[in-house]
Amino acid sequence: MSHLQQSFTVRFAYNVFFTEKLFTITNPILADFFRQQANETRKKVLFAIDSGVVDTHPNLLADIKAYFDQYADLVELVPDLIIIPGGEVAKNDPKWVELLVDAVDRYGIDRHSYVIGLGGGSILDMVGYAAAISHRGIRHIRIPTTVLSQNDSGIGVKNSVNYRGKKNFLGTFVPPVAVFNDSEFLTTLDDRDWRAGIAEAIKVALIKDATFFEWIEANAAALAARDMETMAYLIHRCAEMHLQHIAGGDPFEIGSSRPLDFGHWSAHKLEQLTNFELRHGEAVAIGIALDSLYSQKIGWLSDADTTRVLATLRTLGFTLYQPMLDADHSEGVLKGLSEFREHLGGRLTIMLLQGIGKGVEVHEIDNDLVRQSIATLKEQEPSVQLA
Amino acid sequence: MSHLQQSFTVRFAYNVFFTEKLFTITNPILADFFRQQANETRKKVLFAIDSGVVDTHPNLLADIKAYFDQYADLVELVPDLIIIPGGEVAKNDPKWVELLVDAVDRYGIDRHSYVIGLGGGSILDMVGYAAAISHRGIRHIRIPTTVLSQNDSGIGVKNSVNYRGKKNFLGTFVPPVAVFNDSEFLTTLDDRDWRAGIAEAIKVALIKDATFFEWIEANAAALAARDMETMAYLIHRCAEMHLQHIAGGDPFEIGSSRPLDFGHWSAHKLEQLTNFELRHGEAVAIGIALDSLYSQKIGWLSDADTTRVLATLRTLGFTLYQPMLDADHSEGVLKGLSEFREHLGGRLTIMLLQGIGKGVEVHEIDNDLVRQSIATLKEQEPSVQLA
Repeated sequence: MSHLQQSFTVRFAYNVFFTEKLFTITNPILADFFRQQANETRKKVLFAIDSGVVDTHPNLLADIKAYFDQYADLVELVPDLIIIPGGEVAKNDPKWVELLVDAVDRYGIDRHSYVIGLGGGSILDMVGYAAAISHRGIRHIRIPTTVLSQNDSGIGVKNSVNYRGKKNFLGTFVPPVAVFNDSEFLTTLDDRDWRAGIAEAIKVALIKDATFFEWIEANAAALAARDMETMAYLIHRCAEMHLQHIAGGDPFEIGSSRPLDFGHWSAHKLEQLTNFELRHGEAVAIGIALDSLYSQKIGWLSDADTTRVLATLRTLGFTLYQPMLDADHSEGVLKGLSEFREHLGGRLTIMLLQGIGKGVEVHEIDNDLVRQSIATLKEQEPSVQLA
Repeated sequence: MSHLQQSFTVRFAYNVFFTEKLFTITNPILADFFRQQANETRKKVLFAIDSGVVDTHPNLLADIKAYFDQYADLVELVPDLIIIPGGEVAKNDPKWVELLVDAVDRYGIDRHSYVIGLGGGSILDMVGYAAAISHRGIRHIRIPTTVLSQNDSGIGVKNSVNYRGKKNFLGTFVPPVAVFNDSEFLTTLDDRDWRAGIAEAIKVALIKDATFFEWIEANAAALAARDMETMAYLIHRCAEMHLQHIAGGDPFEIGSSRPLDFGHWSAHKLEQLTNFELRHGEAVAIGIALDSLYSQKIGWLSDADTTRVLATLRTLGFTLYQPMLDADHSEGVLKGLSEFREHLGGRLTIMLLQGIGKGVEVHEIDNDLVRQSIATLKEQEPSVQLA
């Protein structure tokens, strides 16, 4: 019985650029990227854009066309800018992936051309997936337009769509070739989207970096008041930690650990139970509160630190109790534990806190303590709403 | 204008096992693989099997069930063994990918479970694709049953399906976790499939290893007479070179070079022009002959070596002229050049021969010399058919 051993490594590299007004003709950052990539063949660029961003930025399409007119020697813009409804609907209906694959075929987008996704996390997930499966992977660029996508999902290596209502059931691990975070897009976010994206920064701070949590705690009021400079720092630091985590760990999640999913097992289920009325970040804020209380109840997180976590979330404006958590429905949220395990595969692995900045994985969760944590959130909520 | 740099490597490793009668209960090789992978959770195994193999091996399904019954402590066989029509049809109709994705969902196959594709190259391509996109990648195992898939496509890192008749338009680069080459399956191949798989071995020998070509040349008659030991060596050596090429080069084809595609630009087009009546390997044999003659006409390959290449192909039983190559249709074959460039992206890159064992890339092809090479193949053909 003989065998041959195959083994190789593949290197992936990309930059996450921070800029303002990306499509202003005098802003060279995008043109410079294409100039550095240039070789003997002229590349095509196909855009897929979030309808919500087009609505709040009426000049966006004209700005993109003017920008690429200016730099037509570098790349060829496909003039048909594809507009896709933003939010979860982009991931739920397979027709949007088909529309993009069809455009790749019709416009002759090859493996050295570019597909650019511009919008919130859902659009980026879907566009990245369509690019990843076309011609076994067309280069794709992400231009995230929300806090959440600029500091978390939009800068990472995952893409996906939903299948029969199952979140992220279809997808691949394929990094983008570049990400452009344009802070201008954040100015038009509504308060819920502005706030929701902060939850992932709190999450990464709580499991990895006490100093960053202290900074968020100290700046929570400024963030709630939409101070742009404070937000710019938060996004940059959160993005940096997210990238370090990917590079230093298991980028394509071949093992079963997923430490960045702190607070996420209940969040995914809450999103679904509320028919995605709850934003992902809003659900994560509740998930963080729940798992922090659970960490307190097993004696890991001190009372004082638990209070700090919850207070910071509340100062930012998050509501930490949602009726779907309620006793009558708690089987629903607890069901999220088994679904979470099934999606990741292997053993149940949940991150909890042994202190601020110190996440530790466990493989068992006590349902009664989850119910007690939910009860605590419910008790505390009315006083917050009166405040 | 600041930016963050992301960079990481991902390691991929898998073994290609050579065995005989894989599902005989006393053959421990597959069970050993699962034993080595075992951890605290019991894994599921979902089979997708080529209908052609089921037809020629009537005991296969019972053997698989008996084997997994024996090793039920290691893995859990999903008893619904999925049968899929073999050949290109499996890649042409999207319903087969949907069927598999649906089975992954229905049977709760997670990222630590296994999908096993068993069959010819088309089935393996399709099953690998379905596994790669489900849950962002379920572990997949390949059991190739043809010469071609055992020495080439089935042991590599690509998977794909066709889209609207465009070959491999949708796909990903995702290596299997293991490949099991069972020589028993080769005994029931018809002569065309037996022969067709040899073309890829000749290809890799011609561009990389003169010694291996000399071996094939010396053993062409034994291969044509279906000597199994000779075939076993050919497959092992070809597989070894194929794996080395992937590991030593650009496994996920991020650049535009694709040296292993020697003889393939016309082959892909010929397959399509003959509605896939021509097997892939049969088309590659013609493509090798064509590009060898072209190499001769530009003064790169000596007359003697050109004759050796063509004679070896003919001894193996390949027909080196196909009417679709004919003058009236030659625009059709030449159109394969631009389609080849478009699929790969970037510059046209074609491998030619500067000698036996020495492939060299060029970026331009002279259409007239292609037509002259086709004419030479046509002239030579009648004498071969009379022989």
